[in-house]
Amino acid sequence: MKTLVINCGSSSIKYQLLTMPSSKVLAKGMVARIGDENATLSHEVEGDQLERELPVADHKAGMQIILQTLTEGDHKVVEKLSEIGAVGHRVVHGGEDFSSSVPITEEVSSAIERYADLAPLHNPPNLTGIRAAQSTLPDIPHVACFDTAFHATIPPVAYTYALPTELYEKYGVRRYGFHGTSHRYVAQRAAAILGIRDNDFNGITCHLGNGCSATAVRGGKSVDTSMGLTPLPGLVMGTRSGDIDPAILFFLESKGYDLAALNKLCNKQSGLLGVSGVSNDLRTLSEAASQGNQQAQLAIDIFAYRVKQYIGSYAAVLGRLDAVVFTGGIGENSAEVRASSCEELDLLGIHIDAQRNQSVGGPYAEIQASDSKVKVLVVATNEELAIAHDTFNVAQELTKR
Amino acid sequence: MKTLVINCGSSSIKYQLLTMPSSKVLAKGMVARIGDENATLSHEVEGDQLERELPVADHKAGMQIILQTLTEGDHKVVEKLSEIGAVGHRVVHGGEDFSSSVPITEEVSSAIERYADLAPLHNPPNLTGIRAAQSTLPDIPHVACFDTAFHATIPPVAYTYALPTELYEKYGVRRYGFHGTSHRYVAQRAAAILGIRDNDFNGITCHLGNGCSATAVRGGKSVDTSMGLTPLPGLVMGTRSGDIDPAILFFLESKGYDLAALNKLCNKQSGLLGVSGVSNDLRTLSEAASQGNQQAQLAIDIFAYRVKQYIGSYAAVLGRLDAVVFTGGIGENSAEVRASSCEELDLLGIHIDAQRNQSVGGPYAEIQASDSKVKVLVVATNEELAIAHDTFNVAQELTKR
Repeated sequence: MKTLVINCGSSSIKYQLLTMPSSKVLAKGMVARIGDENATLSHEVEGDQLERELPVADHKAGMQIILQTLTEGDHKVVEKLSEIGAVGHRVVHGGEDFSSSVPITEEVSSAIERYADLAPLHNPPNLTGIRAAQSTLPDIPHVACFDTAFHATIPPVAYTYALPTELYEKYGVRRYGFHGTSHRYVAQRAAAILGIRDNDFNGITCHLGNGCSATAVRGGKSVDTSMGLTPLPGLVMGTRSGDIDPAILFFLESKGYDLAALNKLCNKQSGLLGVSGVSNDLRTLSEAASQGNQQAQLAIDIFAYRVKQYIGSYAAVLGRLDAVVFTGGIGENSAEVRASSCEELDLLGIHIDAQRNQSVGGPYAEIQASDSKVKVLVVATNEELAIAHDTFNVAQELTKR
Repeated sequence: MKTLVINCGSSSIKYQLLTMPSSKVLAKGMVARIGDENATLSHEVEGDQLERELPVADHKAGMQIILQTLTEGDHKVVEKLSEIGAVGHRVVHGGEDFSSSVPITEEVSSAIERYADLAPLHNPPNLTGIRAAQSTLPDIPHVACFDTAFHATIPPVAYTYALPTELYEKYGVRRYGFHGTSHRYVAQRAAAILGIRDNDFNGITCHLGNGCSATAVRGGKSVDTSMGLTPLPGLVMGTRSGDIDPAILFFLESKGYDLAALNKLCNKQSGLLGVSGVSNDLRTLSEAASQGNQQAQLAIDIFAYRVKQYIGSYAAVLGRLDAVVFTGGIGENSAEVRASSCEELDLLGIHIDAQRNQSVGGPYAEIQASDSKVKVLVVATNEELAIAHDTFNVAQELTKR
């Protein structure tokens, strides 16, 4: 079955078409700058790139262009639309309602709309994308895959903030966690690499990309994660602060900042960018640091230090640790961050082999030293593939009914 | 030398008079409700209590009443004021200026005033107390002992927030940490109990009182601590939230809260009180929980869970761990919290003996199991004694000059 995976932002649609269950990627691409006269389409088929500039009025127009590109012209990969059997949609916030991927009914759409309150930048465009895709492909199953779903197993002791309980009861203020599709994917991959069953796996998955989060996985289930009500707290990120003293916000108010400015400050001007003053991109910072920029080095050090602290914290939570797993752009590519965040962790039974760590490549690598009690893995994440799997499975279930 | 220790709040003065260096407590007490017609004096000499109600106009009047009580009447402990050789003052915030206790000069007073910005509830009354004491006892050394001083050794990687650097440069936004006098005292006591030198001691000190913080101590020096710019973040406390997603504040603004209300909410209505809805007092919660109150049990569980996470985090930071040390009202008295926060920490080499944990008493106890690689200690804190020691030492130095 050909499965289309959609990830909608406020002005973009990322897509991937895969044959399932073989997982072969037929095409992938993105429509960007939706609403603009000079919107762009990037489309890739087996390494062959198509780039176009064109007006795209809205998400529905964007969807139509994607389907047209998939079925017509030089870069087409299917003969007709009816070959596409299901569409999987990435949705950021599923609140407490969804612990797995589900067929999108009107009820599900309503829930996604309801949770827009908790994810104002993400759920509305996600829903826009769902509606555009449903109207363009009305006769096949659409499946919602939530970033929060994998974290539905986090127990109250870890999801409850030490705030007045009525904030949870009235407004749903609790830890939800994000990047769940990635954490689940790499946890399952790690279990397979270790040759154990998913639900025997105890590990810490570190998704280090532009957004970053760590998850404690016990018996294959998320039991704690570093992001919270929103994707702001926890690890240091490209432009997000991660954990800070919340009273800094009260202090800065006395210096003339208002909440809107502080929101922007913490989410857009902090993290690697804020500390370094140079860039939110770790590669750029590594270069700057190697040329003597001390603030760039400090930003990298803080980034790795925070990862190390979460590894320690979650090791304490888990009690037994099979593996630490690094994934995401930084997790997969920065030997420096991996080495630094695992430095002197012998107490936890974690010991990296320096040479293995330097020569990581391919879909996965084991980088622990031979005397390390805990495995240290680098696993390439693939959220699109995870969404495609879920979508295929849900669609199969629907057929059986 | 008789040494007077003073801890000034906005409407109270706590005091203790000790003979140093023998550390004998001659008297201790408190003037409360300063500024009120019905202020109170509590004064204790060798277990014998004096309680009086009387008008106390201001801190200077309060100081005079304390000195009068120490030198006159049935509960006097010195014949004349001149027997008092030095006064030690607890000061909450010393910013980046003080890494140890210092004689109070005009320059030091100015610094305390300057840092009122960072500790608006504490530094102003601390300074008021200093001035009242200086004017009443003008001819002897007054010494400032800062809550922040022990944490002056925290390195940039741990004190720098991942926020724009200009916030540090312009406003001093960084981690400072508090409870330093207590963390230092119990770390030194722990080293003595282990029979090693202070600067060979690697440990995690957990000060669990109404305010709570954990400190990572390497080679006898603080290298990280859970409080930050302010005493809000980190562990769960009686009415303080400890760590939360800072974006909760942005979210709650959209629900009609302003920053003043949020400040009060996080500092006064959260923590054990907020989750339980019952009390900020752990003993009360334990009772409620034993009678089936689930929210009370959840509050205790979250409290202990957070302690456990910080133990893990700091174990990762330290690399080598000699001991975990519990102190403060809860740390010294709650076997439940100690047991729960050390549960299943075998991975870190921490293993409590259940019976030892239940039968803690006296100035210290070792509660680790015989197979535990890491010692687990319960040490009664004594900030007044630590301040008296510092004050005595500083006064001795001044005499030598």
